[in-house]
Amino acid sequence: MAEQPHFDDAFRAELERLFVWRRDVRRFEPAPVPEAAMATLIASANAAPSVGLSQPWRLVRVRNAARRLAVRGIFEHCNADALAAQPEDRAGLYARLKLSGLDEAPEHLAVFTDEGTAKGGGLGRATMPETLGYSAVLAIHTLWLAAAARGLGVGWVSILDPEAVARALDVPAGWRLTGYLCIGYPSQPSDTPELERAGWERRASVSDLLLER
Amino acid sequence: MAEQPHFDDAFRAELERLFVWRRDVRRFEPAPVPEAAMATLIASANAAPSVGLSQPWRLVRVRNAARRLAVRGIFEHCNADALAAQPEDRAGLYARLKLSGLDEAPEHLAVFTDEGTAKGGGLGRATMPETLGYSAVLAIHTLWLAAAARGLGVGWVSILDPEAVARALDVPAGWRLTGYLCIGYPSQPSDTPELERAGWERRASVSDLLLER
Repeated sequence: MAEQPHFDDAFRAELERLFVWRRDVRRFEPAPVPEAAMATLIASANAAPSVGLSQPWRLVRVRNAARRLAVRGIFEHCNADALAAQPEDRAGLYARLKLSGLDEAPEHLAVFTDEGTAKGGGLGRATMPETLGYSAVLAIHTLWLAAAARGLGVGWVSILDPEAVARALDVPAGWRLTGYLCIGYPSQPSDTPELERAGWERRASVSDLLLER
Repeated sequence: MAEQPHFDDAFRAELERLFVWRRDVRRFEPAPVPEAAMATLIASANAAPSVGLSQPWRLVRVRNAARRLAVRGIFEHCNADALAAQPEDRAGLYARLKLSGLDEAPEHLAVFTDEGTAKGGGLGRATMPETLGYSAVLAIHTLWLAAAARGLGVGWVSILDPEAVARALDVPAGWRLTGYLCIGYPSQPSDTPELERAGWERRASVSDLLLER
């Protein structure tokens, strides 16, 4: 066992900056992501914590143009439905939002949860089975931070029918889509959420989200 | 808008170490967590990404002894059920695992998802409503990494009946338990998962979890 590292104030300050700059990115440069960087991001995802050490994340690198087009079609369909469901006073703003970088992002990575995995022996998920999907979320977030540390942006697309995406990517039965990630160099890096810049929503202060019991 | 930071190789190497040392901790020293550190961790959680900028996480700092005891009772009950459900060849090992630090951890933080929040205007969660809970998971993970950067350990307890915990902590209706966190200084820091050290499960290599399409 290695010696526990001591992280210093300078590292913590940089980590804080990383949290702030790790934004959801929907506007990408066409420049490809170096293969070595992709390998590092994917390895980082696998370092995430998981319930019972189940590692239920399954990563699907989507490179085939026809499959990407199919996912884009699913997004367009779901996003049209979402627009139609907007209240009148929000529809115009919603329609102007750019909600995915599917067209421009050089890399697409679909992250699934293998809901049938035996790994972990079911430990920790009898009463909260959703912790399996949560584990895949932790893998996504680890990858996201590793990307931001390399100047790479990640955009998490959730305006998708998860079953249609599973079919379009022909993944094994029992794999449930957790997140569909666009990855590339951001064309408009920012420390402010795009939805805040676009006037969709404002950030709440943590004091409003905290109770004592 | 601030200038996009450049993160260097030294930072990335430290970040990688942070991912490796950010373990699930179930053995804590009794030393209290400084109040300033708790405030920083809680602020970090609020810097996490969230679907539609919904910030659905609700943090409940549990300090009351009777409430902590109630949570411990819920854990004991659920863990006894989980033990009884183990196959014969795993039950002995399961019984020997230490699965929570509820007794020793100086800080308890329950993280809920406010499933009724209007914040975010529903954006991004029409087809995947689970992304609301996923957002609270991202807050937990951000806090977890901020803790590890300070030599603090976090243990995520999921062997709990989420509705019983919500009742024990008397939280508003519509708040769903996402994770119950024990926080403190680890008494046995390690870069290897406790479940791996105890022989419960081994880690899979990322190449086994990756497909191309």
